[in-house]
Amino acid sequence: VPLSLLGTTTGRSLAARASDALFLRACRRETVERTPAWIMRQAGRYLPEYRALRERHDFLTFCRTPELAAELTLQPIRRYPLDAAILFSDILIPLPGMGVEVAFEPGPKLERTTRTRSAILELRTPDAREAAPYVGEAVRLVQRELGGRVPLIGFAGAPFTLASYLVEGGGSKNFEHTKALFYDDPETADLLLGKCADAVASSLRAQLEAGVDAVMLFDSWAGILPPAAVRRFALPFARRAFENALAAVGYEVPRIYYAGQAAGWLEDARDSGAQVVGVDWRVDLDEAQRRLGPDVVVQGNLDPCVLLAPLDEVRRRAQALVRSADPRLGHVFNLGHGILPGTPPEAVAVLLDAVREASQRRVP
Amino acid sequence: VPLSLLGTTTGRSLAARASDALFLRACRRETVERTPAWIMRQAGRYLPEYRALRERHDFLTFCRTPELAAELTLQPIRRYPLDAAILFSDILIPLPGMGVEVAFEPGPKLERTTRTRSAILELRTPDAREAAPYVGEAVRLVQRELGGRVPLIGFAGAPFTLASYLVEGGGSKNFEHTKALFYDDPETADLLLGKCADAVASSLRAQLEAGVDAVMLFDSWAGILPPAAVRRFALPFARRAFENALAAVGYEVPRIYYAGQAAGWLEDARDSGAQVVGVDWRVDLDEAQRRLGPDVVVQGNLDPCVLLAPLDEVRRRAQALVRSADPRLGHVFNLGHGILPGTPPEAVAVLLDAVREASQRRVP
Repeated sequence: VPLSLLGTTTGRSLAARASDALFLRACRRETVERTPAWIMRQAGRYLPEYRALRERHDFLTFCRTPELAAELTLQPIRRYPLDAAILFSDILIPLPGMGVEVAFEPGPKLERTTRTRSAILELRTPDAREAAPYVGEAVRLVQRELGGRVPLIGFAGAPFTLASYLVEGGGSKNFEHTKALFYDDPETADLLLGKCADAVASSLRAQLEAGVDAVMLFDSWAGILPPAAVRRFALPFARRAFENALAAVGYEVPRIYYAGQAAGWLEDARDSGAQVVGVDWRVDLDEAQRRLGPDVVVQGNLDPCVLLAPLDEVRRRAQALVRSADPRLGHVFNLGHGILPGTPPEAVAVLLDAVREASQRRVP
Repeated sequence: VPLSLLGTTTGRSLAARASDALFLRACRRETVERTPAWIMRQAGRYLPEYRALRERHDFLTFCRTPELAAELTLQPIRRYPLDAAILFSDILIPLPGMGVEVAFEPGPKLERTTRTRSAILELRTPDAREAAPYVGEAVRLVQRELGGRVPLIGFAGAPFTLASYLVEGGGSKNFEHTKALFYDDPETADLLLGKCADAVASSLRAQLEAGVDAVMLFDSWAGILPPAAVRRFALPFARRAFENALAAVGYEVPRIYYAGQAAGWLEDARDSGAQVVGVDWRVDLDEAQRRLGPDVVVQGNLDPCVLLAPLDEVRRRAQALVRSADPRLGHVFNLGHGILPGTPPEAVAVLLDAVREASQRRVP
């Protein structure tokens, strides 16, 4: 059986199995009995069982070993009543397939920068099923284990964010090289972004064919741009990646777009083509709902630092956030950014309980 | 003659002399013949004459030596047709007077953290004229040299930003300790913020008495907070610092409040009590004007990375920004953040010329 066929079949059957899940119904703006909740980086360093495995394997080995990625994906699901799992992976996983290796020290460090037209022309746009087969394999292992209990979210970095890593060769304070290229030479930027969009679409497609129930793009660095540049360089390429991935598999799943520091252009985030927009804590949840309007579900947006507070305060703030949401508009609870490594695991239990309690009470 | 009397007299006469200046008229929302322009960190590392002095003196010596601070303040004024000077100093200058020494390595490093109630109780609220007499002396030297040619802006860090530095002991990625203290124990946070507001007010007062023509608070870190926390912890204390400083001198000058990453709570920035609000490039200028309304002048907001582009592109983007402003609402041109050290000096000349040309053309 060719991999693509097997993947598609598995994907369809699992998507069908999970389609009644609270999280997926909330993403589709169906009426839900309570607010679903999951946590960005829920499989991560704050968990002692993660740190125990981390003593024996490095981060890239985690990403590239299906059994380990699956185990890490499932760790928080075993411990907490989460409404979605998210594959353990990294937003930069498409890059090696494009021809640029990535190391984590612990921040991402690329083997070279990609700033010139000729360097961009040399980038490959791989078939992610061949370039990163371990991702699909991890998805299949997770779905077998989950058995439809909760849906599984697949993800990648959004095209602009991948492009900015390629240009800078890693993280950056001011993204001077990215902006220099994008401001001076939009045609070359388009070439780079197009290749990134194709690589991202292929990655999402591979995850869909392996069976994820929703797809998410993290546009971690879109927030460094002026709104006009977001509209020009970030959103259209995120939309293209989503659309090409879903067109390739031929069925729909919820699309989630996350961008921090997006309060200056929140309405525009709809142009990512996502039905769910993740926002950080720098904007009030009800204002985000109002600005994004009735067709978009807002995902977020508790400040991750709240989880470092005493448990009573965690409960109080989570409840206040859930109650601040407009019940006529959609809401998926999450943090406004990834959970901090120093978070006490018991705070997450209190948090999820508080979200559940506060949102159940609201249902008439 | 007591220092305070001397200062007040000097301040009044200079403020009167400069009151016709374009920049001050624009801050007061009077009709202006073109858009005034100055640049955050205009006295800084991008200038070869700054770097030449920097080879012989460290940053703190710059701040604490009136002759050097005055010389640095004047360097960009000699080179460019700027519409305002800003005193060469640092936002953390009030801290040593509060009892906490600061080193620059090059980022600020405080001698200790201030996180407990007892540590906060030990902070002093000094009279800045005695704690940092070199600041007033630098102001007097600059004003003597400027002779009313352009107005001089005095400044300090806003109370919340000073408080966050005190709690963290320096810069921070996530400001976990600040948020832990502020979220858990708002009364202790108030105590800290109150002391910071008093120290900031004293610093602004000392600068006013020495003769600055406008005062600015940089709330560099307010943007890390959720909007509700900005409203609770940042804005009221900025307002208190402004009001106490101006009440102490007994006359009005323009108050400028800068906060980056403020697009989630821009309307609220009016509650800082400032007539001029500086914004970063993460929000469209005309939207910032609309959201802040007719009583506030918007200052900003070109992405500093634009100055790294070819000169034609600098000109084009500066003109486009100036033209995007609603001419019925106030605008002071600036960057959205401090100028980058790698900026070519000739780009600043092109920038200022473009702003002048584009805004003059708009006047009927």
